[in-house]
Amino acid sequence: MAIAQHWLERVRPSRRKVLRTALLGAGMAAVVRPVRAASSRVEALITRMTLAEKAGQLSCFNDEVRPVGAVFNPVVDPRGRDAMLADIRAGRVGMLFNGYGVAGARVAQAAALQSRLRIPLAFAADVLHGCRTIFPIPLAEAAAFDPDLSRRAARAVARETTAGGIHWTFAPMVDVARDQRWGRVAEGAGEDVLLNRVLAAARVEGFQGPDLTRPDALLATPKHFVGYGAVRGGMEYAAVDMSMAELRETFVPPFAAAFAAGAGATMASFTDFGGVPVSANRPLLTDLLRGELGFDGVCVSDYDADRELIAHGIAADEADAARLAILAGIDMSMQSGLFVRHLPALVTSGRVPVAAVDQAVRRVLTLKERLGLFDDPFRSIDARAERRETGSVAIRRTAREVATRSIVLLRNDRDLLPLPRTGRRIALIGPFGADRANLNGPWSFAGDATDGIDIAQGVRAMLADPQALSVEAGCGIVDPLPGGIERAVAAARAADVVLLAIGEGADMSGEGNSRTAIVVPPVQQALAEVVAATGRPVVVLLRHGRALALDGAVRDAPALLATWFLGEQTGPAIADILFGVVEPTGRLPVSFPMASGQQPWSYDRRSTGRPAPDSDPMAAGRSHWRDAPDRALYPFGSGMGYTRFALSELRLPAMVAAGAAVPVSVAVRNIGARTGTALVRVDLHDRVASRSRPVRQMKAFARVTLAPGAETRVALEIAGDALALVASDGTWRIEPGAFDCWVNAGDDAEIAGAFEVR
Amino acid sequence: MAIAQHWLERVRPSRRKVLRTALLGAGMAAVVRPVRAASSRVEALITRMTLAEKAGQLSCFNDEVRPVGAVFNPVVDPRGRDAMLADIRAGRVGMLFNGYGVAGARVAQAAALQSRLRIPLAFAADVLHGCRTIFPIPLAEAAAFDPDLSRRAARAVARETTAGGIHWTFAPMVDVARDQRWGRVAEGAGEDVLLNRVLAAARVEGFQGPDLTRPDALLATPKHFVGYGAVRGGMEYAAVDMSMAELRETFVPPFAAAFAAGAGATMASFTDFGGVPVSANRPLLTDLLRGELGFDGVCVSDYDADRELIAHGIAADEADAARLAILAGIDMSMQSGLFVRHLPALVTSGRVPVAAVDQAVRRVLTLKERLGLFDDPFRSIDARAERRETGSVAIRRTAREVATRSIVLLRNDRDLLPLPRTGRRIALIGPFGADRANLNGPWSFAGDATDGIDIAQGVRAMLADPQALSVEAGCGIVDPLPGGIERAVAAARAADVVLLAIGEGADMSGEGNSRTAIVVPPVQQALAEVVAATGRPVVVLLRHGRALALDGAVRDAPALLATWFLGEQTGPAIADILFGVVEPTGRLPVSFPMASGQQPWSYDRRSTGRPAPDSDPMAAGRSHWRDAPDRALYPFGSGMGYTRFALSELRLPAMVAAGAAVPVSVAVRNIGARTGTALVRVDLHDRVASRSRPVRQMKAFARVTLAPGAETRVALEIAGDALALVASDGTWRIEPGAFDCWVNAGDDAEIAGAFEVR
Repeated sequence: MAIAQHWLERVRPSRRKVLRTALLGAGMAAVVRPVRAASSRVEALITRMTLAEKAGQLSCFNDEVRPVGAVFNPVVDPRGRDAMLADIRAGRVGMLFNGYGVAGARVAQAAALQSRLRIPLAFAADVLHGCRTIFPIPLAEAAAFDPDLSRRAARAVARETTAGGIHWTFAPMVDVARDQRWGRVAEGAGEDVLLNRVLAAARVEGFQGPDLTRPDALLATPKHFVGYGAVRGGMEYAAVDMSMAELRETFVPPFAAAFAAGAGATMASFTDFGGVPVSANRPLLTDLLRGELGFDGVCVSDYDADRELIAHGIAADEADAARLAILAGIDMSMQSGLFVRHLPALVTSGRVPVAAVDQAVRRVLTLKERLGLFDDPFRSIDARAERRETGSVAIRRTAREVATRSIVLLRNDRDLLPLPRTGRRIALIGPFGADRANLNGPWSFAGDATDGIDIAQGVRAMLADPQALSVEAGCGIVDPLPGGIERAVAAARAADVVLLAIGEGADMSGEGNSRTAIVVPPVQQALAEVVAATGRPVVVLLRHGRALALDGAVRDAPALLATWFLGEQTGPAIADILFGVVEPTGRLPVSFPMASGQQPWSYDRRSTGRPAPDSDPMAAGRSHWRDAPDRALYPFGSGMGYTRFALSELRLPAMVAAGAAVPVSVAVRNIGARTGTALVRVDLHDRVASRSRPVRQMKAFARVTLAPGAETRVALEIAGDALALVASDGTWRIEPGAFDCWVNAGDDAEIAGAFEVR
Repeated sequence: MAIAQHWLERVRPSRRKVLRTALLGAGMAAVVRPVRAASSRVEALITRMTLAEKAGQLSCFNDEVRPVGAVFNPVVDPRGRDAMLADIRAGRVGMLFNGYGVAGARVAQAAALQSRLRIPLAFAADVLHGCRTIFPIPLAEAAAFDPDLSRRAARAVARETTAGGIHWTFAPMVDVARDQRWGRVAEGAGEDVLLNRVLAAARVEGFQGPDLTRPDALLATPKHFVGYGAVRGGMEYAAVDMSMAELRETFVPPFAAAFAAGAGATMASFTDFGGVPVSANRPLLTDLLRGELGFDGVCVSDYDADRELIAHGIAADEADAARLAILAGIDMSMQSGLFVRHLPALVTSGRVPVAAVDQAVRRVLTLKERLGLFDDPFRSIDARAERRETGSVAIRRTAREVATRSIVLLRNDRDLLPLPRTGRRIALIGPFGADRANLNGPWSFAGDATDGIDIAQGVRAMLADPQALSVEAGCGIVDPLPGGIERAVAAARAADVVLLAIGEGADMSGEGNSRTAIVVPPVQQALAEVVAATGRPVVVLLRHGRALALDGAVRDAPALLATWFLGEQTGPAIADILFGVVEPTGRLPVSFPMASGQQPWSYDRRSTGRPAPDSDPMAAGRSHWRDAPDRALYPFGSGMGYTRFALSELRLPAMVAAGAAVPVSVAVRNIGARTGTALVRVDLHDRVASRSRPVRQMKAFARVTLAPGAETRVALEIAGDALALVASDGTWRIEPGAFDCWVNAGDDAEIAGAFEVR
């Protein structure tokens, strides 16, 4: 038996205090740090730099020197490469991104050291869920509800990434995402504020490691500051509009947590906020980010986003866009070239004060200094490390562990799972059964699909008799296959159990892939119906980059596993769960809705004046749609294992002082026949407050592993500030009064209590 | 040839100035009127009133004395009636609502005059689109884009309503509605701010008439103040969250217009706003409503909404809810009884200042005085007027005119319409062909479905040979009919043309009827597919309370008419259009989306940083969903007639001063073979501003009727303040710079220009 500590306890002691405070979100006890005093080296450099050199440091570009394709495909256009090297030598480039490989990094860095002031380049990349070895998408990993796992995963990824000559990742995405139509749901930690906070901090700590100057430290960039997850209608790049109170309560806290964990950079959102594009939004990028949150790192624009101020209708031309962006608080311009082209003239003409440019340069150079680049420009450029770390046994083992832990068992009628490894004929049906092209999901940077292990391989390896497995696609992802249905039905009929591998293709989520209908594609739904009609028991292996609205035979299958995009270890991970080698312990980080049109939605929605009772969710005159309740099919936190737990003896104080932590403990007993791990969580509801509160919201969680029949007492602590709300005046406050409290260890196991804050 | 004037010109001259200013929305040149000094009669009454009597005046209840059913069904529970009459005599009731009929009104008013202070009752009702004679739903009527028509319709409804002993309607709904899932889209004027403003003013003027003391004056209640249309996910009663800038620009202006038109009351929204329920939201109900908008009428809570503050989690108990509501600015408590039960003790205990109660009483009594009730408590209680006006020839004629004008022709391939009245065999197929139960749509107060004329009756009356029409339901609204498909296919095969009457049932929109999937019910879609497969030309007669996402054979039918819920004159109106007796002149007040999940959406969405070009709406990396463009199938304003128009010679100034009106004129020519009416509208786009502007937004419109070949110059004026925006500081401003300008007279007829504001 092992009780996982409350996640806060795992944070290194030195960080604990600031993290505690920062987790408030922002405002209440704001972590206002003075701007880090720059070193004398940095200040001396600024003194020597020309305006053009300053503008160059504030500019970053796609890495033409070593584009990712070049690593695996040496045919690169030498003109782009040569021009870029010339720009680097001329001091016109501060950072390159989305290149890979130490050989190219060495060439580029050597060019930087030929520039007048020999300021080294930083190398960044969109390493979202693995560099070369592809991990589960971040949303999947979030399902583990385990900051320690996320920290270890990020550390493993950082080792491989830095070994490829990269210092800096544009990750983690910490956008709270409550509209499953939005494609980038895949990149984050889902709909819950606490889970986003906890995993934001863990991922930052994992990427960066204990010392940013170490060659395997990967600078983190929590993004996208701030509110991107609330794009209207879930449409990519659409407008964002909400109250500042909602922004502070829901969207800001993960950033505060990431900054408190030491993140050295952030990235501004593509979107507007209340009509003002974030890249030109000084109240957000300066007043909130720098003032309230005390962030003193680098704020980089998203790809071309400063130039897009023209399309937003905020800037008249490129120079105007550059002016608005730097004055709002953008330190570094990505890809557009606007800063390098326009900042010198803007300063000379008096439209931008040189102090604004100097401040941005100070931040960029300080970041390079923190990374140790001035002392060792060739840090993380080591061919031996590259060979050793890339696709190492260790990283693949971690990738498999994360993949296994990401899977969520949502339904398991009559203990259909786990399957025995012998004595069953298994039909693996569906477009994802024997398919490597869709293992990794969206944006798998330098990943190579040929490295991956598909479901058929994973399952076959688990079987005593490999012949017991038959595989039929049945259909394509969106198109039928000639004869596919007939072959699938025949395979199902010939089997004892069907594994149905269906869902979204790799290109159906991620950036630019918002969907109006978040469903299993119709051709696959039709396949599911005919397979179900054979009467064989069906285990649905759902592949997806978001929560989906399930219907018909998919929704009603006796067993259902949410398997997301699990990366290269997809097959082994799924097989581990299917055959009970590993207990399923994942929980949904996003609610699976009742219907596709039930978006945005989150389990912690605000109380309405006409809530429908649980006993009658479609009661007339109450809050619901005509064709769907205000409920999820599988709400946030859903998921089970192969055993069950019972809770008893909830202990919590009757009365607590405002600001004090609330100790909660409960007895957890494994009432099943297998060892298993419970996720014990505490949800609160503030009964009466100055603003309507969530109907319930998770405030603490812990994991506990118990042998059959074993019982233990799990103690959790609700941080005092977790009881706070943002009042209408924008400040965080704890209001006295009663709180409902639910401790939950799975759908059936819930115990309620209450306490009073005075 | 008749040119309709720009709507502003129709407003009575004395109101023009204040209206002009108020249309700004709020803020820029706010119409801050001091609180109307109450009369000496009112002040004297307040002096004499006990706290209990004051609380009684601030309380209104469902009319148990004459429930609507009683008019047509005399069986009423006498206990409810007797208890209510006793309460009225005791001075515990200020207003009754949703009763009907003068006989009962006389009884109730007589009881009020037996109370100590003899303060008369007011009688109110939810008269949304007709009292006894049911008109098209407000959304349908909005399709006429004609404030004069809306004003006349409201006047006609007011005559019939007041003749039934009602002084006050809880209408018009002026909530801008951009999420078609929301059921109450049906009650308003759709997605556009200008159309909502114009029709809000027209409806208020129509209801109230020139003199509120006249027996046929019906007090108007623009509702729901404010923001209800933005409920999250389109779900009824859900949370509302947006920036104040968005609220001021989009949701407030129709209220400002309604108040400037003299509306005597408003109703607070059920919803919260940024977490604070509107019924307890002093910044909205006092600072904005009274302070900025200068509204001095009565603000009534919605049904039970003050008590619902408890469910919202804002009030601890009923007394607390009453306290919050009255202090926020609610004058009158609806149905909960909270004010009458709790205000006296709240005042006595010092929790509510008596001045707050007195101010509300002052407003309520002043409203009764404005209605002439003190001088004639039995105004609008006249059995002769009731007989004369109820279902009069005149009101039915107006209802038919409005119904005909509400229909929108969206598609008419190869001039399939109008149909000849002879020589064609017509099959009328679909559940709404011969059906009176679904003519009226949601909330048709005292309407009686047996009064209505269905499509079959309307079409048959138009045919020289009534035998030329065959009628088959084919299916029910949501369920199949045994043999229905077969009979429908046979009927189609035997006909030359098919009229397909499909869509939503009467209970599928309106309050409490939000839908996650805004589609034609599947059983009807299936019917459409088999009918289309016969190859007969199909005219779709769509019935709906919102914009729908059309698909397959419905979307692709050669002719498509949006016919909404047209009320009792449904059949004649549709027949008038089908056979060309009347030219179709309606235009969509809401955009028909490409897909059901494309909500919320509006044609005047804000510019994003990555707009997709019109030439490639699905361009990679641009704003759209993966499965739908950021476009509508039929955007706001879509609709055509049986002729076509061409535009030429756009004239507008190159440069205008900020605040000055912009004259725009264009030559309009009827290039078809029939007389027709063009809707000429002017859309603007502010190229560069401090906040992202709508991609285009309607700023003026006019109607012009032209004979074939005729041409005229149409002059429109864009009000100077129509160029204003709400800046980030919340104030209205006109920012200098270039504006794109499009004049449009139908999809094909558009001409572009630009001007500069300095």
